[in-house]
Amino acid sequence: MRATTLHALKDIRFTEVPDPIITKPTDAIVKVTASCICGSDLWNYRGDNGPIEEPSTIGHECVGEVVAVGAEVSSVRPGDFVIVPFCHCDNTCPHCVAGFQSVCTHGGFTVSGQGEFALVNQADGSLVKTERPDDSMLPSLLTLTDVMATGWHAAVMSRVRPGATVVVVGDGAVGLCGVLAASVMGAERVIAMSRHADRQRIATSFGATDVIAARGEEGEAAVMELTGGIGADSVLECVGTDQAMRTAFQIARPGSTVGFVGAPHGVQLPVRHMFVRNIGLAGGMAPVRRYLPELLDLVLAGRIDPGKVFDKVLPVDQVPEGYRAMDERTAIKVQLTY
Amino acid sequence: MRATTLHALKDIRFTEVPDPIITKPTDAIVKVTASCICGSDLWNYRGDNGPIEEPSTIGHECVGEVVAVGAEVSSVRPGDFVIVPFCHCDNTCPHCVAGFQSVCTHGGFTVSGQGEFALVNQADGSLVKTERPDDSMLPSLLTLTDVMATGWHAAVMSRVRPGATVVVVGDGAVGLCGVLAASVMGAERVIAMSRHADRQRIATSFGATDVIAARGEEGEAAVMELTGGIGADSVLECVGTDQAMRTAFQIARPGSTVGFVGAPHGVQLPVRHMFVRNIGLAGGMAPVRRYLPELLDLVLAGRIDPGKVFDKVLPVDQVPEGYRAMDERTAIKVQLTY
Repeated sequence: MRATTLHALKDIRFTEVPDPIITKPTDAIVKVTASCICGSDLWNYRGDNGPIEEPSTIGHECVGEVVAVGAEVSSVRPGDFVIVPFCHCDNTCPHCVAGFQSVCTHGGFTVSGQGEFALVNQADGSLVKTERPDDSMLPSLLTLTDVMATGWHAAVMSRVRPGATVVVVGDGAVGLCGVLAASVMGAERVIAMSRHADRQRIATSFGATDVIAARGEEGEAAVMELTGGIGADSVLECVGTDQAMRTAFQIARPGSTVGFVGAPHGVQLPVRHMFVRNIGLAGGMAPVRRYLPELLDLVLAGRIDPGKVFDKVLPVDQVPEGYRAMDERTAIKVQLTY
Repeated sequence: MRATTLHALKDIRFTEVPDPIITKPTDAIVKVTASCICGSDLWNYRGDNGPIEEPSTIGHECVGEVVAVGAEVSSVRPGDFVIVPFCHCDNTCPHCVAGFQSVCTHGGFTVSGQGEFALVNQADGSLVKTERPDDSMLPSLLTLTDVMATGWHAAVMSRVRPGATVVVVGDGAVGLCGVLAASVMGAERVIAMSRHADRQRIATSFGATDVIAARGEEGEAAVMELTGGIGADSVLECVGTDQAMRTAFQIARPGSTVGFVGAPHGVQLPVRHMFVRNIGLAGGMAPVRRYLPELLDLVLAGRIDPGKVFDKVLPVDQVPEGYRAMDERTAIKVQLTY
């Protein structure tokens, strides 16, 4: 098959690789019908996750049609249209049962999601099937594989409550989905920190009541002013940098919880500040499977439209252009068509 | 008056200092009738909070009799017996109302608690009066000023639930009170990490169902074995060192929260581990006033007896001997009599 592969620093290709094969009775293979590029793919693209030793496939967000299943798979069969959570799970281990499927003891990840086919471990526990959607619905369903579920996780972990004042740090696709999540959960005030007009527009359409363009200390001061000096009831940290984390802790009110979902890079947590202010931290890699049924219902009912985060659509064989656009921030998030 | 003062590294004296005076209408002065030494006093005693520039009073845990009040104080009057939370609060600001009185916008601290008199800021919001207790009740009431409320806070912040498996890291007085708190909150299994026989005995009397004497990796492996490889539902970190924090995160199950109350010294939070395992952190300086009414009821009803943490009692003018005993770990916690 052909798949997106990373060969060296910023060297992305759509090229021939071996077909995935079923090796375990719990596996399934999905023919990808839509996929996309994740902000976290850029960490690899830019070499921020370490040197790129050898070419490897990349991409973990896709939906498609089941084409083969292992002997023990019973919940899906060839022909089914499925949403593929980026992290796979058996959905029965103690961590899954507790709602943390991203730490499943039999977990795995989609590794060729921007290719023609993707291997899914633990198909029964991971895949969620639905009617084959029309094209207009496809983008929103695609976000449920990662980005929308991740924004939702940030909101859940920061304990967003109806009537609350929520700040979202980060205006990438995850942050925008965090705005949408907080809004759906009934937050009264949703403050988006964003300095890009296009992202501000989406944030507003997702329910942001206020937008703060300033960053760093100036941005923090603006939040404190908006909250009467108290700070936010919930803060969603959707970036993963030290600067974003510092801002999150500066604007979180005492006793609140920063929900974090950006893979941390160079983050030094301000433990003394956390102690003195009694501000907690919770989050991590999103247990996508936990939220999928609820989010699918919201999408199918037309209550949320997270697909709006895609502002560029490219045929999958032009995937290098997609990476370039996201790296240069000329696109928020790129959908790939097949 | 005479008060305990720290002059230099490990140089503690009970010596003459100026009497506290009322300078604000919300102040009160309490004649101390019992006080004690806190594990956190040892940080100062050992120079771990920085160099000791000049002599200053020390001690923040005391109970006693109100002897003077400012013009606006209405809830207590001279003659009342009161419990003095180590951190003062107005109990009306937004942080207090949210239950985080230790971050009160009008807060303050007891600074001469091991002296003859203590000044209390925000007397109305801080002090809790009760009948003058008989001597047998005094130690338990004294623990409510800090140590018992702090152990309780760790349990609250780590979300101890009935039926849960809880691990307490640290067998100092706070850790022992954490064991007691978890037990009262209905934890089914309370695992105390302690390698001292005298502390193990108190832990067991406070409700510990298991004791693990090993530390570091060996201790962590023992917890994982006891919990069937899953980890603890709640972990109370009651030390404040990097080693204790690392252990806490190693044994906390995915999705759980480490409750921390030990003032952090040299702690580097393992943010990547927290992210990958979805383990949160919450806690900090205990909002003593929030818990005081409930804990007072428990003590007066005879349901808890946290005063057991005192294994040495000295006249206050022998306070240097008390610091020495706690520094050398020949005493768990020292009560001072007047």
